[in-house]
Amino acid sequence: VPTVALDAFGADRGPAGVLAGARKAAAEGIRVRIFGPADDLADPGDGIEVVPADDWITNEDEPVAAVRSRPQASVVQAANDVADGASDALVSVGSTGATMTASLFAMRRLRGVQRPALAALLPLPAKSVLLLDCGANVEVRPQHLVQFAFLGSTFMESVLGVASPRVGLLSVGEEQKKGTPDVVAASEMLDDAAGINFGGNAEGRDLPAGEFDVVVTDGFTGNIALKLLEGTAKAVGGAVRDAAKSGPVAAAGGLMLRPALGKLRRQLDPDQTGGAILLGLRGVAVVGHGSSSPDGVANAVRLADRTVRERAVERMGEALEHSGATRQALREQDDRDTQAS
Amino acid sequence: VPTVALDAFGADRGPAGVLAGARKAAAEGIRVRIFGPADDLADPGDGIEVVPADDWITNEDEPVAAVRSRPQASVVQAANDVADGASDALVSVGSTGATMTASLFAMRRLRGVQRPALAALLPLPAKSVLLLDCGANVEVRPQHLVQFAFLGSTFMESVLGVASPRVGLLSVGEEQKKGTPDVVAASEMLDDAAGINFGGNAEGRDLPAGEFDVVVTDGFTGNIALKLLEGTAKAVGGAVRDAAKSGPVAAAGGLMLRPALGKLRRQLDPDQTGGAILLGLRGVAVVGHGSSSPDGVANAVRLADRTVRERAVERMGEALEHSGATRQALREQDDRDTQAS
Repeated sequence: VPTVALDAFGADRGPAGVLAGARKAAAEGIRVRIFGPADDLADPGDGIEVVPADDWITNEDEPVAAVRSRPQASVVQAANDVADGASDALVSVGSTGATMTASLFAMRRLRGVQRPALAALLPLPAKSVLLLDCGANVEVRPQHLVQFAFLGSTFMESVLGVASPRVGLLSVGEEQKKGTPDVVAASEMLDDAAGINFGGNAEGRDLPAGEFDVVVTDGFTGNIALKLLEGTAKAVGGAVRDAAKSGPVAAAGGLMLRPALGKLRRQLDPDQTGGAILLGLRGVAVVGHGSSSPDGVANAVRLADRTVRERAVERMGEALEHSGATRQALREQDDRDTQAS
Repeated sequence: VPTVALDAFGADRGPAGVLAGARKAAAEGIRVRIFGPADDLADPGDGIEVVPADDWITNEDEPVAAVRSRPQASVVQAANDVADGASDALVSVGSTGATMTASLFAMRRLRGVQRPALAALLPLPAKSVLLLDCGANVEVRPQHLVQFAFLGSTFMESVLGVASPRVGLLSVGEEQKKGTPDVVAASEMLDDAAGINFGGNAEGRDLPAGEFDVVVTDGFTGNIALKLLEGTAKAVGGAVRDAAKSGPVAAAGGLMLRPALGKLRRQLDPDQTGGAILLGLRGVAVVGHGSSSPDGVANAVRLADRTVRERAVERMGEALEHSGATRQALREQDDRDTQAS
């Protein structure tokens, strides 16, 4: 049974809300080590171990400086817990930057990976789509996009059970020549890459339409796309609720539709996807939504647990080792290692 | 009364569908010159003049080569009609690339404008948000983003009547230091720019939330954002309709909600916004959706007509002349003009 190191800080509802989520996951047999203020985490319950931590890194802190200088911060302790082998995966709903930085420092990169990427399952009706990078790297080179494709494809295959996931490269047209020079280069490299089901360029509309299982892009575009999709689903959902309040007949209709719409609302709820996962490390790190309800926290812990049990990290490493697409990356890394030694 | 040069080709429903849209606009007193096959455009009706054109440029053609070599193509004739003064604005629902290229060649750029941008009103409930660039320039420099801000702000003020439009720069966080180096530089320049209501960086979720009246970005990100927003609204709308078919009670509820949801559906319909408009030229060019219904064509013609009547082009020129933000651009253009002469 995997053990998840859970940062108790950073949730809008405080450490008690995070603990409530941990209890839901622990009730299913997942072991949790929770890092936070002992007072708020008294009587955690079966399967939950409290590791006291009173310092925490907020969204206002500069991540790299904070992670470097504050080893007692909850997310730093939790990341080190994974690196030390006491836990198998890190989960935090706190600062994305601090979680990514602490994970990068504590867990090393997979061999051949130049840039780990933040991957998120899009909250869509009826279909799972993985988008990466959602914000780890605001600028990337074509080679990085190719690595993202291997990481995302292997993740969807091993953790979500999608056979031969269809991978798309986000661009402004289906034609391979459309897009920035870097995107055009990446599209050609992906066409040549063995061991991946590359379906060509994906347009913005292809994401919600579920045309691809994995969509690859830089962290600037991906972060905007993820937040835009979540925001649009929320705005349209809100407008549907407003419509159901626009008069007595509509209100009665809304009441009769409520059970069916409730299912849709859950599908569109970012809390349901478990948050984003950092791919490309020799370990598992999940960043949940700061607004996470206890259900959201539990889903983030479940995602981490499942990623460990399905050996996704090992499989990503194998996929990268066997792919010709990362030979260049490996060579560059070897060059750096040689220079560093 | 303005005259609109309307390309009859490129619509999914053929020239007859475009003519049907022209008739709706003409019924409101807008004069239309429609460029297309005479056989399909017989008996156009009051206020509509047919200019025969049998050649047309499709999405499959390379825009620059096609526009250069085929002066008889409908969109090229229509753009030249505006340049010659016979019409006041161009509207096409055909190839976006061909329409942009024909407009760029026929109408010159406004003084100081380095890169015209494609601007689109987002199909959102209850609020008009202008996004630019939606695809004219896949790569831009910070100075271009500043110009887009002036163009978009002046357009929203003159054509949509929004007083002191709040302008946002699309990025991955509210903090000015977030984003690519070019975006960070543009954000600082916009902060210093006089004559514009810059509200800081906009995140992806701020677009559907209506936090800004104008959102500025590069054409790669903007194209993806526009299509993603339209696609997500469509997917969620479709899921609501599916929910209303999931059983007899839900179906009855859906029927009672239909009038209220119909209004929302129209708000989310990209046809309602009239399409995208090319800003930064000494003329008006509107690109409608290829899937446009006659209503969509009529809305594109109305948008063009309104842009002419509100003197938006002259006002954009004045805003740019008076802004310190484009002095650098003007200098660069003067340098080029000097070198070219």
